[in-house]
Amino acid sequence: MEPAVSEGIAYPALYLKRGEDARLRAGHLWVFSNEVDVARSPLTGFTPGEPCVIVDARDRPLGVGYVNPNSLICARLVGRGLEHALDRSLLTHRLKVALGLRERLYGEPYYRLLYGEADGAPGLTLDRFGDVVVAQATTAGIERLKPEVEAAVRKVLNPAALLWKNDAAIRALEGLPSYADVGFGAPPGALEVREGGLAFAVDAIGGQKTGWFYDQRANRDLLAPFVRGARVLDMFSYLGAWGLRAAAMGAREVVCVDASAHAVEAIAANARRNGLAERVRAERADAFEYLKALRERREHFDVVILDPPAFVKRKKDLAEGRLAYRRLNELGMQALARDGILVTCSCSYHMPRQALLDGVQQGARHLDRQVQVLMQLQQAPDHPVHPAIPETDYLKGYLCRVLPA
Amino acid sequence: MEPAVSEGIAYPALYLKRGEDARLRAGHLWVFSNEVDVARSPLTGFTPGEPCVIVDARDRPLGVGYVNPNSLICARLVGRGLEHALDRSLLTHRLKVALGLRERLYGEPYYRLLYGEADGAPGLTLDRFGDVVVAQATTAGIERLKPEVEAAVRKVLNPAALLWKNDAAIRALEGLPSYADVGFGAPPGALEVREGGLAFAVDAIGGQKTGWFYDQRANRDLLAPFVRGARVLDMFSYLGAWGLRAAAMGAREVVCVDASAHAVEAIAANARRNGLAERVRAERADAFEYLKALRERREHFDVVILDPPAFVKRKKDLAEGRLAYRRLNELGMQALARDGILVTCSCSYHMPRQALLDGVQQGARHLDRQVQVLMQLQQAPDHPVHPAIPETDYLKGYLCRVLPA
Repeated sequence: MEPAVSEGIAYPALYLKRGEDARLRAGHLWVFSNEVDVARSPLTGFTPGEPCVIVDARDRPLGVGYVNPNSLICARLVGRGLEHALDRSLLTHRLKVALGLRERLYGEPYYRLLYGEADGAPGLTLDRFGDVVVAQATTAGIERLKPEVEAAVRKVLNPAALLWKNDAAIRALEGLPSYADVGFGAPPGALEVREGGLAFAVDAIGGQKTGWFYDQRANRDLLAPFVRGARVLDMFSYLGAWGLRAAAMGAREVVCVDASAHAVEAIAANARRNGLAERVRAERADAFEYLKALRERREHFDVVILDPPAFVKRKKDLAEGRLAYRRLNELGMQALARDGILVTCSCSYHMPRQALLDGVQQGARHLDRQVQVLMQLQQAPDHPVHPAIPETDYLKGYLCRVLPA
Repeated sequence: MEPAVSEGIAYPALYLKRGEDARLRAGHLWVFSNEVDVARSPLTGFTPGEPCVIVDARDRPLGVGYVNPNSLICARLVGRGLEHALDRSLLTHRLKVALGLRERLYGEPYYRLLYGEADGAPGLTLDRFGDVVVAQATTAGIERLKPEVEAAVRKVLNPAALLWKNDAAIRALEGLPSYADVGFGAPPGALEVREGGLAFAVDAIGGQKTGWFYDQRANRDLLAPFVRGARVLDMFSYLGAWGLRAAAMGAREVVCVDASAHAVEAIAANARRNGLAERVRAERADAFEYLKALRERREHFDVVILDPPAFVKRKKDLAEGRLAYRRLNELGMQALARDGILVTCSCSYHMPRQALLDGVQQGARHLDRQVQVLMQLQQAPDHPVHPAIPETDYLKGYLCRVLPA
């Protein structure tokens, strides 16, 4: 393998085929395995996660990245130019830039601190829970850089602990094992997250994703004018974030529904912790069954919140997933009062924004109701979107008013 | 012309061709002239603005609307079913439903009170400025209903005055004249609008559109975390709404630029009125020239706001308009500090949201800078989107962080 022409950086070169540099020059950070000139730089010559210099067919280096010969996305560009090696110093810089944004946005240290590609650190996610950082590596490149990540986090934040929550399904695509582990510090008993004046207990190790869905925070903030004095139904409630925020904003009565017994206990505990137990009830049920039962007994809410897990995990599931969203939204609208508010979301990257709205509209027409879209929902600004990488833009939703036709 | 089969409503029938009812049944409200069965119901048999019952090819009535034989959109559906005539009672109901939403959203009576199709009143727009309502009719149907509109507004709000600002270019498509006129009440000297704790003088008769861009209000609210202590540039400033809001949120220095001498005077007056004159400067200049001059003298701002008039007024202007947005945004980014915030908007319905972002990203790559999209911007919730009528969704924008690559 030819060494890349560089000033001081001795990483091996990954050569692209002719023309395959265009997407990267336009801003994207991924190299697919069919774009590599394997005659000049055989992928088998790289170990998983090995740093490289990405070089175009005319020998012009694009920048520094890392390789995974076993993955369809076989390399990711981490830095343009050749000034900076893939080390703790680069990660420290990325972390400082990311922190600068979050400190402007939030008064308390609870947020997504670093969001992978969009924060210039492909494959790495960091969530901050006060004095504890929960990290996720989704690529072999970051897995290999774990000690450097830990050093950078210590240098910039020096938190009490860093936990690795390396159990995302996507890791299998990189040939990585699934595990959760303490990176450094003492593993805390229970994590706490603070949002909108409330405190929630979070299970970072056993819970979903990194434990809390910071991506919906700004959307939850939007509930205020709609929930005062209202009866609110929060489906797929998980830890009760939407429902408890609604109660704190003045909802008269909130029902949180989740299929997991553990979640239902956690919602009740979080309601007690925040002095909201009198107005918040948690019920364990399948969402579709619960909504059908409401329809049977003609029970209605002023606000219905539908924030389900991803129904479309792979592109080939789109047709089926669209139907599931359509069905869910129609059931949700049937649980709405005459002049009600529907909050509907999809965190499926493969589900187009417009398809979600089409399903709402089709359901509404079927029920002879009329929809006004008041707000389009999106992921919070601590999950910035990289304009050249559509995959970084996954959360979509609508806050709708639903009226008689 | 055959009379429609209806209970009490004696409007003439407008018959659709076979299959042309599908889009209306899916929620849309417009009938195009090529969809009418002119053998059964010749368009020439209708006068401009005449009420009708819209009927499908199998004689099933869809609802009540109005006709304009001289327009490409030759009819609009106002109410489904045949229960309600096109009169002040129906308009009063629409107005009450619309007001209910605005009163939930806003603490003070300054907002778009009624937004045409999305509020079930095709062709009618009402903006509220405290005790004054500014109305716009964009169709012959609403022009004919002006007395009924006035009666409904009197009944629901009883404001001191209603002004007709009937000078939108789109009226020409309906064969309507351009004029501004007092509907009822005493024409006020100068209107006032209150937003974010500030007061602005507005010229409802001589100003742009209905005098104030309420559609950007929620987007202006988002500036707070980004402008504290910052140098802010507000291009296409009009009455200074963005710039003065930024100053009130703690910006260190604000420059508002507009091509109109009248606007520059108004900005200065509004700044004085709100005690912000020391930190706000208004300059008269062409936006592109001004940004080029900044580039020449390497002058930079922490936040640059680009809220231009529509560059794409007709679909055929799209290619040229895209270039103009791309050029404007690149110039805007050149006026940004190393770690700066770009607020960029387009109110052109024909400009796709993604095309705006593509232009930003292309400009950024050309300047070797990296963009993080922090927030997608949209029209405020007093301009609800009708999910079956894409034309109601026109305002798009992005709040971006722009970093070195």
